[in-house]
Amino acid sequence: MTVKSNNISVIEHRVSDEDRRRRGGHKGGILWLTGLPGSGKSTLAFDLERRLFDAGRQVYAMDGDNLRYGLNSDLGFSHADRSENIRRVGEVAALYADAGLIAITAFISPYRADRQAARRAGGARFHEVYLSASLEVCEGRDPKGHYKRARAGEIPDFTGVSAPYERPENAELVIDTGVMTVADCLDILVGYVERAFGPDDGGER
Amino acid sequence: MTVKSNNISVIEHRVSDEDRRRRGGHKGGILWLTGLPGSGKSTLAFDLERRLFDAGRQVYAMDGDNLRYGLNSDLGFSHADRSENIRRVGEVAALYADAGLIAITAFISPYRADRQAARRAGGARFHEVYLSASLEVCEGRDPKGHYKRARAGEIPDFTGVSAPYERPENAELVIDTGVMTVADCLDILVGYVERAFGPDDGGER
Repeated sequence: MTVKSNNISVIEHRVSDEDRRRRGGHKGGILWLTGLPGSGKSTLAFDLERRLFDAGRQVYAMDGDNLRYGLNSDLGFSHADRSENIRRVGEVAALYADAGLIAITAFISPYRADRQAARRAGGARFHEVYLSASLEVCEGRDPKGHYKRARAGEIPDFTGVSAPYERPENAELVIDTGVMTVADCLDILVGYVERAFGPDDGGER
Repeated sequence: MTVKSNNISVIEHRVSDEDRRRRGGHKGGILWLTGLPGSGKSTLAFDLERRLFDAGRQVYAMDGDNLRYGLNSDLGFSHADRSENIRRVGEVAALYADAGLIAITAFISPYRADRQAARRAGGARFHEVYLSASLEVCEGRDPKGHYKRARAGEIPDFTGVSAPYERPENAELVIDTGVMTVADCLDILVGYVERAFGPDDGGER
């Protein structure tokens, strides 16, 4: 890691991860959803947030659209800006996990190297979930009309059309959102979260 | 606000602020500590985090040193980098508040305009706390030896020595950490937090 400043030191928190885990009944962690536009990332992230909240979990979902109004409002869609976007999201997700929350992130995050950086920021708490719906399915859905505009050349660097999507090779979980219902996808995700972060996880992964 | 991307839309969370408030027993919010190096920001932030955690609050403290290893590892100490550092911290604090947490930030944040930007990001949930210990007191303490090094010219742009500190004019709370004990400062802060974010706050400020 490169750090540009040289007069820094780290003060330890006086609330430990274990304190937070005992209080919340689960570990902090990161569920990193990745997939093509239209693969269901935001829908699943916000539905899962509700399901986990109702189950008593401390949880927060972030998606690409929301963050671009705040933290990442200075970034566009060039490769460099996309990388910086994902780098910051990875760091913020790690901060949420530090605070004992389950952070759900819903970002296309098309580049493998960027997802790797997010994984490094999150450490062992990072779980990659690939929503593997095909381009044909996602483009057929086109919930926001973005594919159509991208095909018409109105949106540059659109993932799947004019910018690449690098499929995950080592995702902790793969869900084919092209064939399963939202309800079934949610059941899988809830079960996964309970196993990965829940009180009965049997220790570190 | 300027947003560099044009194909974004905002999906609403399905867990409301009110849902989170009911669950946690308090509102999310931001306690923004500002003051000279050595004014006690990090000490108070991490002690306050522990006190509030023990009182059952959902709380997370961040300080400048810690964040510079992660989210802000690409930033140095120039005026522009300091501004961007504080802008990001303000956005992250707002994200914590969105998640229902009390975010305590311990950053020198010497420039008024930067603190104003953090206030805009946090909205009505933002509370500025000025730790008003004088330069003489802070330099006399010099807990990390940074003032001495700054006077020797070894640290450029050091707040209070070779870079300005613009005192807050409208802080919600001012604590003279130059004359009060840490214990007394903490009591004031805990009382303030309970009034500002607690269950019996009587509504919005």
